Amino acid sequence: MRALTWHGKRDVRVETVPDPRLEEPTDVIVRVTSTGICGSDLHLYEVLGPFLDPGDILGHEAMGVVEETGPDVTALAPGDRVVVPFNVSCGTCHMCGQGLQSQCETTQVRERGMGAALFGYSKLYGQVPGGQAEFLRVPFGNTLPVKVPHGPPDERYVYLSDVLPTAWQAVEYAAIPPGGTVTVLGLGPIGDMSARIALHRGASLVIGVDLVPERLARAAARGVTVLDLRAHTETGDDVVTAIRDLTQGRGTDAVIDAVGMEAHGAPAGKAAHQLVGMLPDAWARPLMERAGVDRLAALHTAIEAVRRGGTVSLSGVYGGMLDPMPMMTMFDKQIQLRMGQANVRRWVDGILPLLDDADPLGVEGFATHVLPLEEGPKAYRTFQAKVDGMVKTLLKPGAAA
Amino acid sequence: MRALTWHGKRDVRVETVPDPRLEEPTDVIVRVTSTGICGSDLHLYEVLGPFLDPGDILGHEAMGVVEETGPDVTALAPGDRVVVPFNVSCGTCHMCGQGLQSQCETTQVRERGMGAALFGYSKLYGQVPGGQAEFLRVPFGNTLPVKVPHGPPDERYVYLSDVLPTAWQAVEYAAIPPGGTVTVLGLGPIGDMSARIALHRGASLVIGVDLVPERLARAAARGVTVLDLRAHTETGDDVVTAIRDLTQGRGTDAVIDAVGMEAHGAPAGKAAHQLVGMLPDAWARPLMERAGVDRLAALHTAIEAVRRGGTVSLSGVYGGMLDPMPMMTMFDKQIQLRMGQANVRRWVDGILPLLDDADPLGVEGFATHVLPLEEGPKAYRTFQAKVDGMVKTLLKPGAAA
Repeated sequence: MRALTWHGKRDVRVETVPDPRLEEPTDVIVRVTSTGICGSDLHLYEVLGPFLDPGDILGHEAMGVVEETGPDVTALAPGDRVVVPFNVSCGTCHMCGQGLQSQCETTQVRERGMGAALFGYSKLYGQVPGGQAEFLRVPFGNTLPVKVPHGPPDERYVYLSDVLPTAWQAVEYAAIPPGGTVTVLGLGPIGDMSARIALHRGASLVIGVDLVPERLARAAARGVTVLDLRAHTETGDDVVTAIRDLTQGRGTDAVIDAVGMEAHGAPAGKAAHQLVGMLPDAWARPLMERAGVDRLAALHTAIEAVRRGGTVSLSGVYGGMLDPMPMMTMFDKQIQLRMGQANVRRWVDGILPLLDDADPLGVEGFATHVLPLEEGPKAYRTFQAKVDGMVKTLLKPGAAA
Repeated sequence: MRALTWHGKRDVRVETVPDPRLEEPTDVIVRVTSTGICGSDLHLYEVLGPFLDPGDILGHEAMGVVEETGPDVTALAPGDRVVVPFNVSCGTCHMCGQGLQSQCETTQVRERGMGAALFGYSKLYGQVPGGQAEFLRVPFGNTLPVKVPHGPPDERYVYLSDVLPTAWQAVEYAAIPPGGTVTVLGLGPIGDMSARIALHRGASLVIGVDLVPERLARAAARGVTVLDLRAHTETGDDVVTAIRDLTQGRGTDAVIDAVGMEAHGAPAGKAAHQLVGMLPDAWARPLMERAGVDRLAALHTAIEAVRRGGTVSLSGVYGGMLDPMPMMTMFDKQIQLRMGQANVRRWVDGILPLLDDADPLGVEGFATHVLPLEEGPKAYRTFQAKVDGMVKTLLKPGAAA
């Protein structure tokens, strides 16, 4: 089959690799019809090389049609249409049983001290072949894939794999009071969708912060009060001051940090990131695991911008072990900090009713680019450069290039 | 009147100072009958000198009898018995109205960017005269003091000022599931009381960690599973491993960090603390405000010892602005971090029913030392040295020395 594989820093290729096969009696093989590129895939592209082998298949946002089922699969049959959650989670262990699928004890990557395995996300998360490919082996066929109806376009359902539950969890964890206010830092796909969900669920004010014009325009068109970081940088006005000015001086009830370790504005962190990228793997790996190399501009802004007694919800991934944090301010302000990979399966039942013809979250117009899988490498370059109006890309395996 | 006043690092004195007087129409003057020494008073004693003036009256755990009321006080009359919450909170503002009395907008110390003023707790918190004195001026007489019945001994009620609501909030914020498990780091008064409350409210396992023998013995006698840090240091066994061994390898559902910035075991942090103590005030103040000088052994242990998806509840005060934090681990484990000064008034109604003759929390035997106010300076020395079996001290103004 054709698959998008990693070969080095900023080097991904679509090449022909062996088809996946059933390995366990509860496996299913899915023929992938749509598969997203996630912002976190750029971490693999840029800095997580020490945890990848050349040829690793990337991608964790896949949906498609069941092609083949293992002998113990009773919940699905060939021909069923499914979305594949990015967590590789069993659905039946102690953690899955309490809705912590991202901590699944059946797939936890214990030798690295990490949580549940993820599709296509490096040795840190189990080195499981990913979904940017024509076919995907999916374990736990009775509990993991989300069955969806035939008929509507893939765009209606594909975001159940990651974007929708990640944004939903970000809003849940933000614990916005009824009619309350929230700031969303970063209006990439997760931040954009978080803002939409917060508005849909009744927030009275959703402030969105970014520096990419088309992201700001998309969010503004849906009722988000947008703040352009570039303008604040030019004028020297603090974006935190602007947020306070919109909220009687208090800051918003919650802040969702949808940026994570890719944040702009902290040159020291950036240098550390690049330094790690240049080191031989054997040195870089322990350095990344042990050293604080995150750029924390977004997180520190979140702590400043949230009102006293408010909640900071982190959906952006952080990778540092010695990240400098203002504990005095956090303690004095009585902040709650909530975070973690989305527990995809936990939120599906809440989200599915919104994926109807009325499309209240605008999922069907959400992708800015729908491209053949073969154009994946070019899409990674474009996405990283944040050009060509690219906010969200879906790849279509099997489509003509 | 006689009052315990600060004069320099490790230099507190009981001296004669002017009596407080009514200043606002809603003030009351309380004749103090019992007043605690808090672990956080040791921060003033040791490192917060840059924020104190010689003569500042310390203490924020007072109760007594109303001596005089301002003309607008209708809720209290002279002779009423009251406990004084450590927050100076109005009870009627936007923050108090939602139970965030430690963030009271009427008393927020805005010029220092801090939350609600506190009794006897330095310029960082309003430089309000404290309660280790014969008399205390209490603002917001209609809403702040907690009226309690005459009859039972002071020891039944005095901990409503701080220990009980701080421990109660620590347990609330820990969000222990029904029948769940919790580790309490530090078995000083707050940790000890947190462990008692967690057991009373149904935790199936409460693990307590400390290194002071009498603290461990007190907690063990009440059903806490204690781990002695000294033994773990001697054998090289990790205390985190011991906690996991008690919980099927997972760690406890929650961890309460009742140690805060006084934690042992991080020499670099200790050196930084001492360094700050030796600097001239004009240098030390900005250094303490800007630099990360916390000793973080307890907090880092908490992050390791909590189970995946669990909650870390911080009741110990932190003072650093660049504290190195393992965001990668916190994100991967999906940890919630909740913290802040107790909102005293918020928890009083939940606690009062437990202050009866049955004394389920053991408040009446809680103090290890009850001493005349005049012996306050000696008690500070003993408390800091953690000798003489001193866990909790109450001072009695007016008692014979």
